[in-house]
Amino acid sequence: PGKKVLIVYAHQEPKSFNGSLLKIAVEELTKQGCSVTVSDLYAMQFEPRATRNDIVGHLHNPEAFNYGVETWEAYKRGGLSKDLVEEQKKVQEADLLIFQFPLFWFSMPAILKGWMDRVLVQGFAYDLSKAYDGGLLQDKLSLFSFTTGGGQEMYSNEGIGGDIRYVLWPMQHGIMHFCGVKVLNPHICYAPERVSEEKRKEMLTAWTQRLKTLWKEEPIDCSPEWYFK
Amino acid sequence: PGKKVLIVYAHQEPKSFNGSLLKIAVEELTKQGCSVTVSDLYAMQFEPRATRNDIVGHLHNPEAFNYGVETWEAYKRGGLSKDLVEEQKKVQEADLLIFQFPLFWFSMPAILKGWMDRVLVQGFAYDLSKAYDGGLLQDKLSLFSFTTGGGQEMYSNEGIGGDIRYVLWPMQHGIMHFCGVKVLNPHICYAPERVSEEKRKEMLTAWTQRLKTLWKEEPIDCSPEWYFK
Repeated sequence: PGKKVLIVYAHQEPKSFNGSLLKIAVEELTKQGCSVTVSDLYAMQFEPRATRNDIVGHLHNPEAFNYGVETWEAYKRGGLSKDLVEEQKKVQEADLLIFQFPLFWFSMPAILKGWMDRVLVQGFAYDLSKAYDGGLLQDKLSLFSFTTGGGQEMYSNEGIGGDIRYVLWPMQHGIMHFCGVKVLNPHICYAPERVSEEKRKEMLTAWTQRLKTLWKEEPIDCSPEWYFK
Repeated sequence: PGKKVLIVYAHQEPKSFNGSLLKIAVEELTKQGCSVTVSDLYAMQFEPRATRNDIVGHLHNPEAFNYGVETWEAYKRGGLSKDLVEEQKKVQEADLLIFQFPLFWFSMPAILKGWMDRVLVQGFAYDLSKAYDGGLLQDKLSLFSFTTGGGQEMYSNEGIGGDIRYVLWPMQHGIMHFCGVKVLNPHICYAPERVSEEKRKEMLTAWTQRLKTLWKEEPIDCSPEWYFK
């Protein structure tokens, strides 16, 4: 109760299974007394491209554009574009970040990757010597909640898709852990488009149930062992 | 000689190190008698968002938008948007796909991820029972050429970034192998922004040298063992 949650949501269709998962999270967390904010990336027509437009006013080095350097400098002087400042404010205030999306090509949809690329700039999310356990977004939790196209048997050590944890490494470790954010167990709904209506309902109920005790969960040990045994 | 190469390039600045790597590839491959096409994504202002705009005309199911289903249906009836059709034509004609980009958050920049999300649609790149070794883009080669921010020591089994091969899994196996495309060894330039001018020149020379004998290379064995030992 009183906790702040930011849900970054990347699906085009409110009636989709991802849309239902979002709705459940908003309802259940609100019911708990949390304050919930949603960044609905497609509805916002969120810009995924990292370009010069992200810097308001002059460039640090107009001779050769370096996105990392320019956004870092712009962050320090308060010169990032408005859409980024707004997202950073939401992140700053949040105790928990939930990412809700369909797995696209073993990763996030580009629109969500663009949110990571553009919002989590140096100075805000990490700094030269402040990364991983020293990252700037400590005391926050994150949770990757996603659907897959392939079934669970595909994403196993025996399956051709390999252990599902392999695809979590860049997202959970490479991004969240890098910024100092702790990582809760992912929430994965396998192939909702290929199962029965009954099974889909079970999956939705399981999400509601998990959210009820979410704040009691311990973060995972986000080290190579968790991902690759 | 006579081979066709598509370079999908994702950097904002021609004067960058990635820009130099691109220039070298175009020059060296052209010199060999290859026909080289470049998709310069930022210059093209390539759209990374997967939306309803990718489908020309009516939707298969306007009641609930499903990107995978809609692009598949649109592909079959020739109803994908012009920018996608053009990229697919380039892919279709190519013997080799080179992806040139700076690693962003253990993955591709969003603009390049958007290229994967939108261009490699069902029906074109894979189909229900046609994936991995049966994927629709067989007899093509791919090569991921990228720069990193962190040094090589960071991306090792002992380093906090883990083995660099971990980040290659979603890109090489999850995308290219899934579509039936064979994968050459990646070409990685570690931390070009942090090394001496002399070392940078050595890296550029190494890329030229590698390209000279590229067509004699054997694809990697794109199985979990290559990535995770």
